[in-house]
Amino acid sequence: MAWQGLIDRYRERLDIAQGAEPISLCEGNTPLVPAPFLSKLIGAEVHLKYEGLNPTGSFKDRGMTTAITQAMFEGAESVICASTGNTAASAAAYAARAGLKCIVLIPDGKIALGKLAGAIAYGAEVVAIRGSFDDGLKMVRDVTRHAPIALVNSVNPARLEGQKTAAWEVTEQLGQCPDWLCLPVGNAGNISAYWMGFHQVKQSPQLLGAQAAGAAPIVRGHVIENPETFATAIRIGNPARWAQAEDALRESNGKILAVSDSEILKAYQLLAQREGVFCEPSSAAGVAGLMKEAEDRPDDFIGRKIVCVLTGHGLKDPDTAVGQNLTPTIINADVNELLKHLERDTK
Amino acid sequence: MAWQGLIDRYRERLDIAQGAEPISLCEGNTPLVPAPFLSKLIGAEVHLKYEGLNPTGSFKDRGMTTAITQAMFEGAESVICASTGNTAASAAAYAARAGLKCIVLIPDGKIALGKLAGAIAYGAEVVAIRGSFDDGLKMVRDVTRHAPIALVNSVNPARLEGQKTAAWEVTEQLGQCPDWLCLPVGNAGNISAYWMGFHQVKQSPQLLGAQAAGAAPIVRGHVIENPETFATAIRIGNPARWAQAEDALRESNGKILAVSDSEILKAYQLLAQREGVFCEPSSAAGVAGLMKEAEDRPDDFIGRKIVCVLTGHGLKDPDTAVGQNLTPTIINADVNELLKHLERDTK
Repeated sequence: MAWQGLIDRYRERLDIAQGAEPISLCEGNTPLVPAPFLSKLIGAEVHLKYEGLNPTGSFKDRGMTTAITQAMFEGAESVICASTGNTAASAAAYAARAGLKCIVLIPDGKIALGKLAGAIAYGAEVVAIRGSFDDGLKMVRDVTRHAPIALVNSVNPARLEGQKTAAWEVTEQLGQCPDWLCLPVGNAGNISAYWMGFHQVKQSPQLLGAQAAGAAPIVRGHVIENPETFATAIRIGNPARWAQAEDALRESNGKILAVSDSEILKAYQLLAQREGVFCEPSSAAGVAGLMKEAEDRPDDFIGRKIVCVLTGHGLKDPDTAVGQNLTPTIINADVNELLKHLERDTK
Repeated sequence: MAWQGLIDRYRERLDIAQGAEPISLCEGNTPLVPAPFLSKLIGAEVHLKYEGLNPTGSFKDRGMTTAITQAMFEGAESVICASTGNTAASAAAYAARAGLKCIVLIPDGKIALGKLAGAIAYGAEVVAIRGSFDDGLKMVRDVTRHAPIALVNSVNPARLEGQKTAAWEVTEQLGQCPDWLCLPVGNAGNISAYWMGFHQVKQSPQLLGAQAAGAAPIVRGHVIENPETFATAIRIGNPARWAQAEDALRESNGKILAVSDSEILKAYQLLAQREGVFCEPSSAAGVAGLMKEAEDRPDDFIGRKIVCVLTGHGLKDPDTAVGQNLTPTIINADVNELLKHLERDTK
């Protein structure tokens, strides 16, 4: 039978209303792609959980199917979220499918084009605020206390219910629980959800979380007032799930570390140009963290089964891909010009 | 066991070198998403084959896994293609994974941003030509006669071998062969490949092909010198697989028709805003064709099982999504401003 999405697949393990009709876009079931180049580099068996192949291009769809399903069941007519972009696109898509109005708050001027495009295409009302993601989250938490609108940020527990399914998929696809799971940490909803999922089936890898050096509140131990990184999806200074992330890290015997933007960029390029897997910059933070930690403590990783979560597709942020490179060579539509160009190229 | 891509799944049915080591990004296995809004509109059971969830964001990955696998087996060191964008990104990704050099020829200034971003990110050499896709295809066919470079456009038979797997997936997922399969027609490789796939298992739906009105050579019966449509992926005036497309249409008792850019845009918006499925503009041509034909001849469609192929993800062309809409409302990071905005909104 065809894959019908996460609620259809895992309903009995999810804490959502049992009578609710699933709102699904056939999310989940994303590939676990072997990473031969990274495997050789580290001397381990590395796989990439390619969450960018969810319907709206990011892992957020896992939690959104449950959040919107629950909101519909509870009679919501509109939903709202604050977002660095991926949550916005996902909320907009599932709201459109459910026939709900969707309002998204984004930090003005700090959203990757592909993310904004999604939210707009799905028909959401996009409101840009003169402030950060953290400001936006505070605003939507406030506003949903005063207006009959459902909040679908990851502070909504139904979001984590769906999101935790990724932990089960990883273990099912690998045929066993991995030794390490590496992932970027922004608002810390995802690391919390993976931990919930692993905890529920009583088998967890060590978690390796990576924050961008300019937006690393958990690593630093304090709120970052003005978080900065080109990896916009994790440009968050005060994670909503901070305490849960710390629990997850401690209980899984895990680690969290900061990686610089240049380390993230290097991992981003390696993934695309060596593995053939294009992810958004923030997604590469988990891989950057793995590469850094494996260099410092190789024995913790050699021979292990390692899964790196790539949270979003590279197409979410086309400007980063194009921006690093020059404009293409332009030639006339003449085969001799092409031959000359190719010859010059091989000299 | 985890999904390991199309060659792993279907090898015995594919005409590629049996000893070849698969170069795969776990392509295929894309969801067949139910389309409740379209189903109601047409009075049929409509599903969307969401090919935008292949690794590089389009259906091209199906044929590229077989083409690059075959090229590697034959000892290629570099590959080349002409492309409106999707083939370029796909060739670049699989070449990167195989460690091959990749050169892509694109029509200058007529490529959607998300497609160019992919090709560049995967490390391909992008050469823009002052000419059309058709000019580019002629150039790469010529050049591969003079230089030791493998051609990976869909004139390469290994491309269609992989591409035909989509026909089998559709039938497996639906639990039966659909009555109609609707899809956009550009270079006509995809409709030819579906036909090959259905023909091989001796069961085919009626094929409904749609060309953009400004780039409809098969509908018009003659080459279009200067094809024009905003659906860049099907802006092709002289399809390489023209004769095979006509065979497929005739033998499947199918149809081909032209749809205007405004009909394509309407279908594109309906898909995103009603079904929650964001595809690239050209992908919506098949749905536009279905809507048009079902209005003219409703009895041919009522009660039928219909699959529409959405060839690429909407993220491939973010500018089309953003371009149609105004810039977002901007407010201060103040919950009262947000409440005021929401109240005004509901009046």
